[in-house]
Amino acid sequence: MRLPVRAGIALRKIAILGSTGSIGRQTLDIVAAHPDRLAVAALAAGRNNLETLAGQIRAFRPELVSVADEAGRRELLELMGGQEKVEVVTGDQGLVAVATHPAAQTVVTGLVGFLGVLPTAAAIRQGKTIALANKETLVAAGSVIMPLAARCNARIVPVDSEHSAIFQSLAGCRTEDISRIWLTASGGPFRTWSGDEIERATVDDALRHPNWSMGRKISVDSATLMNKGLEVIEARWLFSVTPQQVRVVIHPQSILHSAIEFVDGSLVGQMGLPDMRLPIHYALFWPERVPSQAVPRLDLAVSGSLTFEEPDRQRFPCLALAESVAGETNTLPCVFNAANEVAVEAFLQGLIRFGEIPKTIERLLAEHKPVSDPSLEDILGSDAWARQRCLRQLGAPAQQSVIS
Amino acid sequence: MRLPVRAGIALRKIAILGSTGSIGRQTLDIVAAHPDRLAVAALAAGRNNLETLAGQIRAFRPELVSVADEAGRRELLELMGGQEKVEVVTGDQGLVAVATHPAAQTVVTGLVGFLGVLPTAAAIRQGKTIALANKETLVAAGSVIMPLAARCNARIVPVDSEHSAIFQSLAGCRTEDISRIWLTASGGPFRTWSGDEIERATVDDALRHPNWSMGRKISVDSATLMNKGLEVIEARWLFSVTPQQVRVVIHPQSILHSAIEFVDGSLVGQMGLPDMRLPIHYALFWPERVPSQAVPRLDLAVSGSLTFEEPDRQRFPCLALAESVAGETNTLPCVFNAANEVAVEAFLQGLIRFGEIPKTIERLLAEHKPVSDPSLEDILGSDAWARQRCLRQLGAPAQQSVIS
Repeated sequence: MRLPVRAGIALRKIAILGSTGSIGRQTLDIVAAHPDRLAVAALAAGRNNLETLAGQIRAFRPELVSVADEAGRRELLELMGGQEKVEVVTGDQGLVAVATHPAAQTVVTGLVGFLGVLPTAAAIRQGKTIALANKETLVAAGSVIMPLAARCNARIVPVDSEHSAIFQSLAGCRTEDISRIWLTASGGPFRTWSGDEIERATVDDALRHPNWSMGRKISVDSATLMNKGLEVIEARWLFSVTPQQVRVVIHPQSILHSAIEFVDGSLVGQMGLPDMRLPIHYALFWPERVPSQAVPRLDLAVSGSLTFEEPDRQRFPCLALAESVAGETNTLPCVFNAANEVAVEAFLQGLIRFGEIPKTIERLLAEHKPVSDPSLEDILGSDAWARQRCLRQLGAPAQQSVIS
Repeated sequence: MRLPVRAGIALRKIAILGSTGSIGRQTLDIVAAHPDRLAVAALAAGRNNLETLAGQIRAFRPELVSVADEAGRRELLELMGGQEKVEVVTGDQGLVAVATHPAAQTVVTGLVGFLGVLPTAAAIRQGKTIALANKETLVAAGSVIMPLAARCNARIVPVDSEHSAIFQSLAGCRTEDISRIWLTASGGPFRTWSGDEIERATVDDALRHPNWSMGRKISVDSATLMNKGLEVIEARWLFSVTPQQVRVVIHPQSILHSAIEFVDGSLVGQMGLPDMRLPIHYALFWPERVPSQAVPRLDLAVSGSLTFEEPDRQRFPCLALAESVAGETNTLPCVFNAANEVAVEAFLQGLIRFGEIPKTIERLLAEHKPVSDPSLEDILGSDAWARQRCLRQLGAPAQQSVIS
């Protein structure tokens, strides 16, 4: 899961083939936004847009520039008015010179068509990293380019959004690079019910989960959205994030099982049919991926619409309650959990109404004097206190083990 | 991107806490499906479902079993009729004995509630891998459990589907574990047009892409779905898959940028707004993730519906043409690409109709005598031949460089 710790922050110099095209201009937007990390070694453009190129030269001061031909070269030098010291070369050889510029570690191949093959091959021979936006190079010459890259130890990082998605989905990432976690929730059986209807929901109503087949306790937790609240707390511990970094979103189809938003704004998430055998299979074989025939497969083309919406913390106060204790490292989350376990059991036994579950928890949280930096014994003690107190308040018999 | 090569295939023994519950039963489904890889060392169940437990013992032959109390123990032994040699223990100590069984490498904590804390802590102290399905353990005792796991070098692999999704999205994977690639396509500006309307589409129509801001050539390729066909070929080279493993799916919102389906049926994909600066940023900084403010962020809760549908290869014959050459390692894909470049340029110059683009490519493919195992020179030669031949057929002037 962890990549090597990042080395000292170094300036990465890049060469851009096709600097005045769409990919080239957007690449320069990113260079401009990170002047301490990225710089331009060389630029190649074509026949048109020489004014744009002149502006790029003034802004990014490359050492080398290539244009289509001699006429373009003269026009460019005129546009520059002799103000900048820059070498201007031309033609196919010019493209190759930019692609192989000694100062460039990464070459962005933002040109269009077969034209990309020769300069890309030349950059690969120099062992440069290719930020590949010129798909025609692989389409026309993949059988030559890929072995060449392997031989020259040159990495090809796709820029095409689809292939970048696949590449990112394969690449391991560090928990430090997490910006937010999107924790998806089906919304449970009461997603579309009014607050009053939820208040009076029966045990049968609560056990009728739309997507997942689960045990009784977790089914009730899912109906109150407590399950999602518990998962916010679980996520903070598993992934070293703050609860504020965990964003709960309702996703009634339960196809996207959750996603990470990285610091650069990219989301990577895992999808599948709502079948617990999938995550169990993964956990049993981790870190291997082992073929499975037992579990039905998701077919996106027949999955229908995937929708997302904000959770309603008024109708589902358990979620807000969980979020209010999620940041604590004292015994409050333990008492919170114990009160919920007792309240759910009391609801299942017909002792309290569905709407009493959050009220029971809230009352107990208010009464608890939290222990800081608890030991395992402190936690066992707080749990026992909370259960006794809660049972007494509910007038219930001593609680049975909930293991079935 | 590559994890260490898998070691010799070894039998992994597991202990299951809560074997007759929903998670426990599904875990045993997976064990049953992989008898050469997984076996059961120990099982713990509660007070109920003793008949189910007796069946599990007969099927999986654990060495140790735990039940709630002495009455349960007697009932279980009676159900077994003395046929099986199995040790039966009881109570909290029984749970701990199962969780710490010396033969078990992985402990699946499928029990419900706070009850999971003690046996989970005990298993962690033995350095076992925890397949964690008991979220209450982290909710109530995360501040104790996580440091304990770090100290004891015990890995916690989440089973909760949401946390498994996050874990899988962080974990690196090997290209060998790819079962399929779901390559998403917006469908382009003509997604909902009839075949006749597409046949007569103008240049302006073709350049009006719904989601992405792109150059002219790729915009036309997007309108013909040729762009997706080129990407199928690109993907086969980048990710060492066969073209048959690449499944194109139309996704008009361009939010899911593509996904990997692994051999175990799980999909991991990357999402974001359709903004090329995101993949460019990633490629420029790869393998680092660098914070970005420049690129707008996706908010799932306001993203609306994500939909998926099969592409129509009748209305978009370029996709089928690309797929027909995608498996070749000879010069056919090169000629295919050259014919497309010439045809698109001819369309942009008003020399041919939109519907002529696939026909032009098909004609040239039929005429080409492919060169096997081509060198870079063979590829340059085929490209030049294809362009000349194609231009002559279209009666067009010599083609200009397409770099802008």
